[in-house]
Amino acid sequence: MEAKAPSARTTVKRLADRAVYERRTIEAILDEALYCHVAVVDDGSPRVIPTIHARISDTLYIHGSNASRTLRTVKDGGEVCVVVTLLDGLILARSVFNHSMNYRSVMVYGTAREVTDPAEKWEAQRALVEHIVPGRTADARMPSEKELRQTTILAIPLDEASAKVRSGPSKDAEEDYALPVWAGEIPLRLVAQPPIDDPKLPPGVATPDYARHYSRRGTPQS
Amino acid sequence: MEAKAPSARTTVKRLADRAVYERRTIEAILDEALYCHVAVVDDGSPRVIPTIHARISDTLYIHGSNASRTLRTVKDGGEVCVVVTLLDGLILARSVFNHSMNYRSVMVYGTAREVTDPAEKWEAQRALVEHIVPGRTADARMPSEKELRQTTILAIPLDEASAKVRSGPSKDAEEDYALPVWAGEIPLRLVAQPPIDDPKLPPGVATPDYARHYSRRGTPQS
Repeated sequence: MEAKAPSARTTVKRLADRAVYERRTIEAILDEALYCHVAVVDDGSPRVIPTIHARISDTLYIHGSNASRTLRTVKDGGEVCVVVTLLDGLILARSVFNHSMNYRSVMVYGTAREVTDPAEKWEAQRALVEHIVPGRTADARMPSEKELRQTTILAIPLDEASAKVRSGPSKDAEEDYALPVWAGEIPLRLVAQPPIDDPKLPPGVATPDYARHYSRRGTPQS
Repeated sequence: MEAKAPSARTTVKRLADRAVYERRTIEAILDEALYCHVAVVDDGSPRVIPTIHARISDTLYIHGSNASRTLRTVKDGGEVCVVVTLLDGLILARSVFNHSMNYRSVMVYGTAREVTDPAEKWEAQRALVEHIVPGRTADARMPSEKELRQTTILAIPLDEASAKVRSGPSKDAEEDYALPVWAGEIPLRLVAQPPIDDPKLPPGVATPDYARHYSRRGTPQS
């Protein structure tokens, strides 16, 4: 890979051949993932929660509630570590030791900034919805000022990000290839099922295409 | 729910109606999830990595390598926070504010203990493989002593665990139900595709049933 790690702690040390520092790859993984895990230090202890995110250019926005203890911990400039993980397949090797997974993950370190500017907050909220269901903000009622105030959105610059990607077949030890053990990949996909109408939906409201043909399938990088 | 939170920090405060402290539910979520996110405090900073886990009775085992910086940080008794998250569907409400996801997640706090006893380490390694592909340890070559030494496995007691579950339709504000906006759920499933033979597989090695009919679908709790 041409690109370099942006800092010492984003330099992938373990299985360094899986490291990717190219911005294009990092962005594609962040954009495909439906949610992230955000880690903070809370009173000296580690704490991690799942939440949703969206990327606008070089900024990662993560969504919370005013009541979230985790986000409260960091919104005054605390450090966060955000990880997204996409699982692409299970790798069954001849040996248990070489079993693995094909995956694409991104790790972002940064200092969180609470988004308070109304225009930026509106755009971030819009991006959070469009990230998950492209097209949805054209239909759904957009937030009121009160609703926007009840929402916490944090911004993290994508300055310190790295990706880790594993793809391809298993790598067994030379002497294991002769074993009569099946080896291969079980590919895994996140697949949308047919949408379920809300029980209180009035008659005559059609299911939009973005719900009928929802797909999250990105193109695995290699 | 009948069961109580095992500690103050595992008491779900935000959206407390989603909290589940029943051991059966916690175990089912841990057992269905293919991987977890492990957060640690590393030199004062938060750090979170994805890794695989397996449960044996009241103990959660997580897998690492001797070279993993994250696991090195905690294997001498450091505190960890482990989260698994299963995404079941996207909830499209009439208002952007009430958009949500159906999910099942578990959060475990604990002090990690490195597994050094050879018998326990063997069983944990076996459980890690069987957790991901039930039946696989009957076929794959089990680890040598050297391979087992190259693997770090940490044990975390499941004393301090809680679950959070959201299911069912959207909850809109009363005045929004009249809006002519489609609302409903887009269910999501992790689906296995047909297995891909390893390119170096010798002729005559059949694809085992556990790979041909791989399924991760658990039963969502409600």
